[in-house]
Amino acid sequence: MRLCISILLLFFLIFSQPCAAQPLSVSSPNASLRLTFSLHNGAPTYQLDRFNRPVILPSRLGFVLKDQPPLAYDFTIAAVDSGQVDQTWIQPWGEKKEIRDRHNELAIVLQEKTPSRRNLILVFRLFDDGLGFRYEFPLQPESEQVAIMDELTEFNLAADAAAWWIGAYQWNRYEYLYQKTRASDITVAYTPVTLETDDGLFLSIHEAALTDYASMALRRTSRTGFQADLVPWSDGIRVRSRTPFKTPWRTVQISDTAGGLITSYLILNLNEPNVLGDVSWVKPGKYVGIWWEMHLDLSTWHSGPRHGATTANAKRYIDFAAEYGFDGVLVEGWNLGWDGDWVNESINFDFTTPYPDFDIEAVARYARDKGVRLIGHHETGGGVRNYAEQMEEAFAFYQRLGVNTVKTGYVGHGQSILRLDENGVEQGEWHHGQYMVQQYRLAVETAAKHQIMLDVHEPIKDTGIRRTYPNMMTREGARGMEYDAWSPDGGNPPDHTTILPFTRLLAGPMDYTPGIFDLLYPEIKPDNRVNTTLAKQLALYVVIYSPLHMAADLPENYRARPGPFQFIVDVPTDWHDTRVLHARIGDYITVVRQQRDGSDWFLGSITDDQGRILDAPLAFLEPGQKYVATIYRDAPDADWRTQPYAIEITEQLVDANTVLSLRLAPGGGQAIRFRPATKADRQKFITSHSD
Amino acid sequence: MRLCISILLLFFLIFSQPCAAQPLSVSSPNASLRLTFSLHNGAPTYQLDRFNRPVILPSRLGFVLKDQPPLAYDFTIAAVDSGQVDQTWIQPWGEKKEIRDRHNELAIVLQEKTPSRRNLILVFRLFDDGLGFRYEFPLQPESEQVAIMDELTEFNLAADAAAWWIGAYQWNRYEYLYQKTRASDITVAYTPVTLETDDGLFLSIHEAALTDYASMALRRTSRTGFQADLVPWSDGIRVRSRTPFKTPWRTVQISDTAGGLITSYLILNLNEPNVLGDVSWVKPGKYVGIWWEMHLDLSTWHSGPRHGATTANAKRYIDFAAEYGFDGVLVEGWNLGWDGDWVNESINFDFTTPYPDFDIEAVARYARDKGVRLIGHHETGGGVRNYAEQMEEAFAFYQRLGVNTVKTGYVGHGQSILRLDENGVEQGEWHHGQYMVQQYRLAVETAAKHQIMLDVHEPIKDTGIRRTYPNMMTREGARGMEYDAWSPDGGNPPDHTTILPFTRLLAGPMDYTPGIFDLLYPEIKPDNRVNTTLAKQLALYVVIYSPLHMAADLPENYRARPGPFQFIVDVPTDWHDTRVLHARIGDYITVVRQQRDGSDWFLGSITDDQGRILDAPLAFLEPGQKYVATIYRDAPDADWRTQPYAIEITEQLVDANTVLSLRLAPGGGQAIRFRPATKADRQKFITSHSD
Repeated sequence: MRLCISILLLFFLIFSQPCAAQPLSVSSPNASLRLTFSLHNGAPTYQLDRFNRPVILPSRLGFVLKDQPPLAYDFTIAAVDSGQVDQTWIQPWGEKKEIRDRHNELAIVLQEKTPSRRNLILVFRLFDDGLGFRYEFPLQPESEQVAIMDELTEFNLAADAAAWWIGAYQWNRYEYLYQKTRASDITVAYTPVTLETDDGLFLSIHEAALTDYASMALRRTSRTGFQADLVPWSDGIRVRSRTPFKTPWRTVQISDTAGGLITSYLILNLNEPNVLGDVSWVKPGKYVGIWWEMHLDLSTWHSGPRHGATTANAKRYIDFAAEYGFDGVLVEGWNLGWDGDWVNESINFDFTTPYPDFDIEAVARYARDKGVRLIGHHETGGGVRNYAEQMEEAFAFYQRLGVNTVKTGYVGHGQSILRLDENGVEQGEWHHGQYMVQQYRLAVETAAKHQIMLDVHEPIKDTGIRRTYPNMMTREGARGMEYDAWSPDGGNPPDHTTILPFTRLLAGPMDYTPGIFDLLYPEIKPDNRVNTTLAKQLALYVVIYSPLHMAADLPENYRARPGPFQFIVDVPTDWHDTRVLHARIGDYITVVRQQRDGSDWFLGSITDDQGRILDAPLAFLEPGQKYVATIYRDAPDADWRTQPYAIEITEQLVDANTVLSLRLAPGGGQAIRFRPATKADRQKFITSHSD
Repeated sequence: MRLCISILLLFFLIFSQPCAAQPLSVSSPNASLRLTFSLHNGAPTYQLDRFNRPVILPSRLGFVLKDQPPLAYDFTIAAVDSGQVDQTWIQPWGEKKEIRDRHNELAIVLQEKTPSRRNLILVFRLFDDGLGFRYEFPLQPESEQVAIMDELTEFNLAADAAAWWIGAYQWNRYEYLYQKTRASDITVAYTPVTLETDDGLFLSIHEAALTDYASMALRRTSRTGFQADLVPWSDGIRVRSRTPFKTPWRTVQISDTAGGLITSYLILNLNEPNVLGDVSWVKPGKYVGIWWEMHLDLSTWHSGPRHGATTANAKRYIDFAAEYGFDGVLVEGWNLGWDGDWVNESINFDFTTPYPDFDIEAVARYARDKGVRLIGHHETGGGVRNYAEQMEEAFAFYQRLGVNTVKTGYVGHGQSILRLDENGVEQGEWHHGQYMVQQYRLAVETAAKHQIMLDVHEPIKDTGIRRTYPNMMTREGARGMEYDAWSPDGGNPPDHTTILPFTRLLAGPMDYTPGIFDLLYPEIKPDNRVNTTLAKQLALYVVIYSPLHMAADLPENYRARPGPFQFIVDVPTDWHDTRVLHARIGDYITVVRQQRDGSDWFLGSITDDQGRILDAPLAFLEPGQKYVATIYRDAPDADWRTQPYAIEITEQLVDANTVLSLRLAPGGGQAIRFRPATKADRQKFITSHSD
């Protein structure tokens, strides 16, 4: 393993011979990928090949700095180090328990030939499933302060490709439908950007370990060439830092299959290990809550006669949660600050004072007595200064009440985050700039101090920091189910959830809030409905990974359909392993996951507007073991447009050699629970078979 | 099941009420496909929907006839019949032993409203994997002779798609590289035409049971609309027939996966059952022969000092075949007629007289004594009249010598087939018109009479008649391996064999003649080479299905590489079952097949110019059973361009739960034999593991 470059730097500079030999290269452990570094007239560039064919053509590296010459030219290689890692680490929770981190590393110390002789270190890690690289700025005593005006990192694709992406710098954060274009038609996109080359290679370009830096977008600068576009502060500076520091990792994941991107753990491997120590208090789970009823306008966040967050209503949800074994009950709109135009005008939420009709002490006690946790809610409205001022107190308040999970919210548009600059003047910042990255991390750290898990809505994008902060559970950061309640464009079209697993979800878990059972609500929202079949709602619990999953609909809608609801009751949210059986971006996906610390497996398969018949071999099951498969599938006449509720629930005995034919209706899906068959089960199925 | 329409027709016409109710429809057994028939102003049309979404928009049906009004308008529905079939039949040999024929049928008797009141019957069969339909011409006593000038059948695609196709009416029969374009860029194409819609549906349009009709090409007549283009006789008539008769089936196979097209048996299901009775004399197998050495110009087909088909040379191949257990030895160029420009000028092959240096009686006896069969060869040079005159004698001759397989050849270009018309004048016919369809069938029937299997080169395309005539084993009908010996364009590019399984091979088995071990022959053919790695040559034996597979290279080249050659020795050519694990047209494919009457499985995986890493779950293996996997794979530095011979052969214990990571080099492949592990095997692997 590479020793610490920072410590060794002085040693290298004194004792190493300049490495004139060029280019330098490093391969992935199975030799399929090769990274080549070279200096072109002193300018650092990298190239990435796979099986001897270029994937990333020579691409620049470097920085433009404020009040300094660019850190991009006139370099020599002062030292080179390389190493290998092959270790397996355990996720305290996640989509897979044991993660193998196997990579080869190449670290290059660059030194300017100019009199300033500044250093820049480049670290490349080659995994079999992709590349990660970052810059390290060593301590530069004469200019500790660094203001990055531009990061010159390029990703010059070797060939054009299909691309799934959302445009950056829009008013509504990340909440857009993904568009599919040629890569050569991208303008500027948030990462992860997903690409499918004409040769059948799937790529995801993203970043890892974004904790104190601007988030990276990709701006197209040539036909199929992209440059890092760091989301700036309001004054145009992209990143403010102080040496020594390290940038986030820039990542390129590569697979021959679309599913291979989903089971790549490169992003997690590039994050730092857990810094929180004992995290036995972090527990994945399922929750219900006072939430969808507000999206349907059946009640309100704000106070008044239709206020949703009342003591009685909360107890009703707690009763339901206790009856069906849910872990938590979310209550939104419970605290002072929701009245008035809180999004655009007054952002003065009070995070410790409930509305008078919500007796939070009583509710928390009632929940505790029933073995259910109240899930806290901190809507900031983007007012992060207000939040920061109360943050310590707010989490302490919840901790005292036994709350172990808080959902945060940062509703706000465009550059609406108001920061006080050094002159005390309010400046509008993006959700995705360094200022907000810091604010989001502050919340994670403060929550951790109070042993509280976070579910962040309107978040900064995920870059895998849950490895480092295992209380950072899940987040929104895309169009979730709520759009089906009120979006003027009619909600999320059927293909939306067949794109998310290959785009947004490559970044990390998402709180999509699935499980709507009352799919049509013409009296309430005549222009909206849920654009899926009922079976697809169930399948989303497996397809979309989230350690905290909501059963988002109202209790009465679940009680009306106890058969399908059983799947939501049974499905876990923590997994031993994950595999992708079918994957076609924007068309269909089938995922199977094995319960953590259990022997059940769960399958979710969904499709777009097109019906599908997909063969699923059950090779993942324990050989020799019979399982009872409880199958929740679209009925033969199901169609999201005309027969969305048509569902069939059947049971059959299966084993590892069974090939199930999954029949998905248009806009449909299928959910299956596999549990080991008991002797009684086997007897029952033999009997019923001979009937 | 539908009763015989022809017999019942009179009954219908007398007793049925005209069925005014329109449209008529029938669904596939699992209800995913729906065929709708309707009359538009008396003109018959059909439409095909899948999961309630159109796949084929309303498309015309009917005929233009010579000396009669078109059979296309002014129809009424005189009678309708429907039925269901669900039966399983056994292939005497094949890629899968048990074939399930499960379909719903709709038969419609049309009658003209005009005074002639002619009838036309349409029969639609809806399978879960596609549609077949055909026309039946009932007996029309007043005009028994029918000359079809045009078949009006349309296939109007609901949406544009990617298409893989070869152009029809070219000089070189079917021997072209497949081109990939949009469907809307097709001009006129031979079938099968393979389509991938933007919604992720895979279609194959083809025909079944072509035995006495012109073959069908597809001509684009609107943006994404196609009309049947029957290959005409030299006088412009497309089909000559006599009522009653039935057309071949027009077929549309549909799958959500590219691999699903490969494991669709719709074409076979639409052919008539075996008419040959006991076919225990039909035996799949492997062969070697005097063939590749001529393609390399090391010897000649014609007589002279370098004549290949000598007694001594044949015995050398027989020795080799006997040593390694091959079933047959092909000898080409053995009979009089190869001297001179036989392709373009004199077509006077003598099918019973060997060249003086080839003692066929002695060779046949020598082979028989060693347990090897001589494989006969009938090159016609397209001179089918000459062949027909000698055919009976030619097959009797071979039968007497113990030959049970004959490879036929019909080299000839464009309309070079010379037929004598009614005035005794020679007319040039296409390989693909009705005249040649009859000639090819004549050879199949004559061979069967002499208990001889056929391997047809320069054939009519396959339409599944092997079900009816199980001695019709395999055929060429595409660019085979021989192009790597001498093609001016440098041979078959690496992606060719990743396209064939999804195009040409959807029609039926192909004699590709794989297994070239001496990949580079710069002294002999400086501009040619085999454009694969060595491991890919092995994988082709599994990927490309053929009941007769050649080990095409020279004995000395196999003896030089005994390790890889063992796979060719071991691989069978008759299968109990076939599954496709990975499929991406033009990029990669992985196929596994289970040995017929055995417990071994074989895997073949190949890629195009791009290296791949593909995970293969071994769910097909018997659960609980350990297998020894003998793996023939590209070495880490393999690349068809630079290191084509780099191969690794390893063994490991696997079971149904193993997921193998297949690493395919650029232009490479992987071949695996799985055999049940003995106790000794398990002991060996445990021991070697603990070493």
